[in-house]
Amino acid sequence: MSLTPGHFSSGKGEIPVAGEGDVLVRAVYFSPDPMNHAWTRGMPGKFEARPVGAVMRGGIAGRVVESRNPAWKVGDGVTGFLDWADYSVAPSGHDHMGVPLQRIPDGVDLASGLTALGMTGICAYLGYTEIGKPDPGDTVVVSGASGGIGSIAGQIARIAGARRVIGVAGGSEKCGLVMGLGFDDVIDYKAGNLTAQLAEKVPEGINIFFDNVGGEILDAALLHMAHGGRIVVCGGFSHYTENPVPITNHIQLAINSLTMAGFFYFDHVKKWPEARERLGRWLAERKIRELLDIEEGFDTVPHAAIGQFTGGVKGRKLIRITDEVV
Amino acid sequence: MSLTPGHFSSGKGEIPVAGEGDVLVRAVYFSPDPMNHAWTRGMPGKFEARPVGAVMRGGIAGRVVESRNPAWKVGDGVTGFLDWADYSVAPSGHDHMGVPLQRIPDGVDLASGLTALGMTGICAYLGYTEIGKPDPGDTVVVSGASGGIGSIAGQIARIAGARRVIGVAGGSEKCGLVMGLGFDDVIDYKAGNLTAQLAEKVPEGINIFFDNVGGEILDAALLHMAHGGRIVVCGGFSHYTENPVPITNHIQLAINSLTMAGFFYFDHVKKWPEARERLGRWLAERKIRELLDIEEGFDTVPHAAIGQFTGGVKGRKLIRITDEVV
Repeated sequence: MSLTPGHFSSGKGEIPVAGEGDVLVRAVYFSPDPMNHAWTRGMPGKFEARPVGAVMRGGIAGRVVESRNPAWKVGDGVTGFLDWADYSVAPSGHDHMGVPLQRIPDGVDLASGLTALGMTGICAYLGYTEIGKPDPGDTVVVSGASGGIGSIAGQIARIAGARRVIGVAGGSEKCGLVMGLGFDDVIDYKAGNLTAQLAEKVPEGINIFFDNVGGEILDAALLHMAHGGRIVVCGGFSHYTENPVPITNHIQLAINSLTMAGFFYFDHVKKWPEARERLGRWLAERKIRELLDIEEGFDTVPHAAIGQFTGGVKGRKLIRITDEVV
Repeated sequence: MSLTPGHFSSGKGEIPVAGEGDVLVRAVYFSPDPMNHAWTRGMPGKFEARPVGAVMRGGIAGRVVESRNPAWKVGDGVTGFLDWADYSVAPSGHDHMGVPLQRIPDGVDLASGLTALGMTGICAYLGYTEIGKPDPGDTVVVSGASGGIGSIAGQIARIAGARRVIGVAGGSEKCGLVMGLGFDDVIDYKAGNLTAQLAEKVPEGINIFFDNVGGEILDAALLHMAHGGRIVVCGGFSHYTENPVPITNHIQLAINSLTMAGFFYFDHVKKWPEARERLGRWLAERKIRELLDIEEGFDTVPHAAIGQFTGGVKGRKLIRITDEVV
C-alpha cells in the first residue's frame, strides 16, 4: 500500500509546558526522511513506535523559545528529533531519541542544521570515512547523487582525495545538478543499461560505492567493483516500496574480496561532533555546497514526506513551517 | 544450461617432462569445487581461462615422483592447483596458479591436504577469523554446515570461543552429520519456514553468519542478525545455478550496522601457513573432524564435479584417482 495524503492528519493542541531542566523549542524546519517509516514502527531497544494517531517524530531545526536548562538560552538554534509540531519540549535538553539537542552555530542558516550539519551531512561523512575507509586515488561512485546525502558524500569524497567521483542520478535535470556540484561524471539511470554505462564511464572499477538506492543500481555496481572495494549501504530508496527490488550479484563479495556494510546513525553519537566540526568548516569555506529543496508551510508535510519514497527529490527536501522566530 | 556428463571428456596423453627446477607430481586425489566454474572462465589479472577442450585445472593432492628442484624429494606429499591429470609438472615447484606447492606433512592423509589443510579448511579459518572478526560469546550460524567448508567453520567457531554454533543443512541425514560434529543445534532448511526456525532457535540474534549458500537462507539470516553482526560470504551454492536466488533484505545492513564481506582465497597466501599450522594441530588433537565423501576412480569426475552445483554433497567431496603411490 503506497503512502497517500490520506494517511496524514494534523490537529491543534496546547503548547506543551517545559518543566524544570526542560527546553521548549519552536520548530522552523521539518526534515522528511525515509526514516520516518522506521519512526512509525519503532525499533526494539532503540526507540519506541509512533503508531497511527500519534504525533510524528522527525528531524527538526528551530530555536529555543523558553529554557529552564542552564545549557540553553532563548534564541539558540537547535536541531534534534522532536515532534512534528510547532512546539516541542526537549526533556532535560534531550530530543525524543534521548540524545542531547545539537547546537546550530550563530550565523549558520537553520536549514544547514538539517543538511550539512544534520543527519544528512553526518551520514555522508560517517558513511564515507568510517565505512568506506577511503584511500587517496579511489574511484568513487555515489548513487542518489542528487539527493541530500549523496550530493554531500560526493563532495566529501573529493575533499578526502578521491581520484574520480561519479554520480548516479535519474534524468537530465538531476544529472545537471550533480555535475554542477563538481562531480567528474554522472550516470543517468533512467537512460537504461546501467551495466554498459558503468563499463564505459568507470573502466577502472569502483573502489567505493556509496549507495543510497539499492536494487538494480546496487546489483550493477556489484559487477563493476574493483578488487577489495567497499560498498557503503547508506540507504535504499528501492527498498522503501511495496516490492523491494532484489539483488542477485552479492556473490561478487567473495569473488572480488568486497566489503558491504551499513551503519546505524545513532550508534555513532560520539563521532557527531567531529563530523559537525569538519562539515561546518567545509561549508564555511564553500568546499561543500548544499542542494536544498524547500517546501513552504505545515500543509506541505504530506506531499514532502511522500516524496521521500517516490524519488522526486532534488537535493535536501525540507519543510519550512514558519519564518525565523525570536 | 545445467552441467551434464556430456560436458566432460577425458583422453590419454604423454607424461609431461619436468625441466630444470621443476617437480613432477602424481595425483592421488582431485578436488571438485564450485570454483572449477571460475577456472574455465579465467579471471583477468588473476588466472587464465581453461576453455573448452583444455585440461581442467583444480585442487590436487599427490606425491612427488620426480624432482629437479632441491626443495622437493620423491615421495613428498604435496597439494596445489594442477591439471586434472595423472601427472602434472609444477614449474619451478609452483602450481598452475603461480603459488608454491604446499607440503602435506608426513603421516597426514593426503585427503586432509585437500580438506582441513587445503583450500577447504583454510577458507573456513580465514573466513571465520579474518572476515568474521569473532568475539568470545558470539552466536554463530553456519549455512552449508554439512559441506566441507561449513563443517570445519562451525568447529573453528567452537574452538574460537563462540557461545553457540548452529548449523543449517538440508534433510535429516545431513542435519545428523552436523549434530555429530558437536554443533549446538541445526536448522533443516528443507523443513521450510526458515524465518520461524531462526526465530525459535536463535532468539538472541546472529553475531556471525558464515554463509556458503546465499539466496533464501542469506535473506532470512539478514532479518535475524544481531546489531553489529558480521556476514562472511564464503560461497553461494544458490548462485551457481541458471537462476540465482535473489536477496531483498540487504537494507538490514544499514538498519543493524551489519558488515557483509567476502574474500578471495589467493589474496591471503601469506596467511596460509598460519592457517595450515593451526588446522594441522587441531586435526591432530581431534578438535576438528573432517567429513569426507570420496568417489573412486577417474571416471567419477563428471558425477563428482556436477554434484558441487546440485547440493548433493555430504562433507568434502574428493575423487581418488589412484591408490597411494611411491
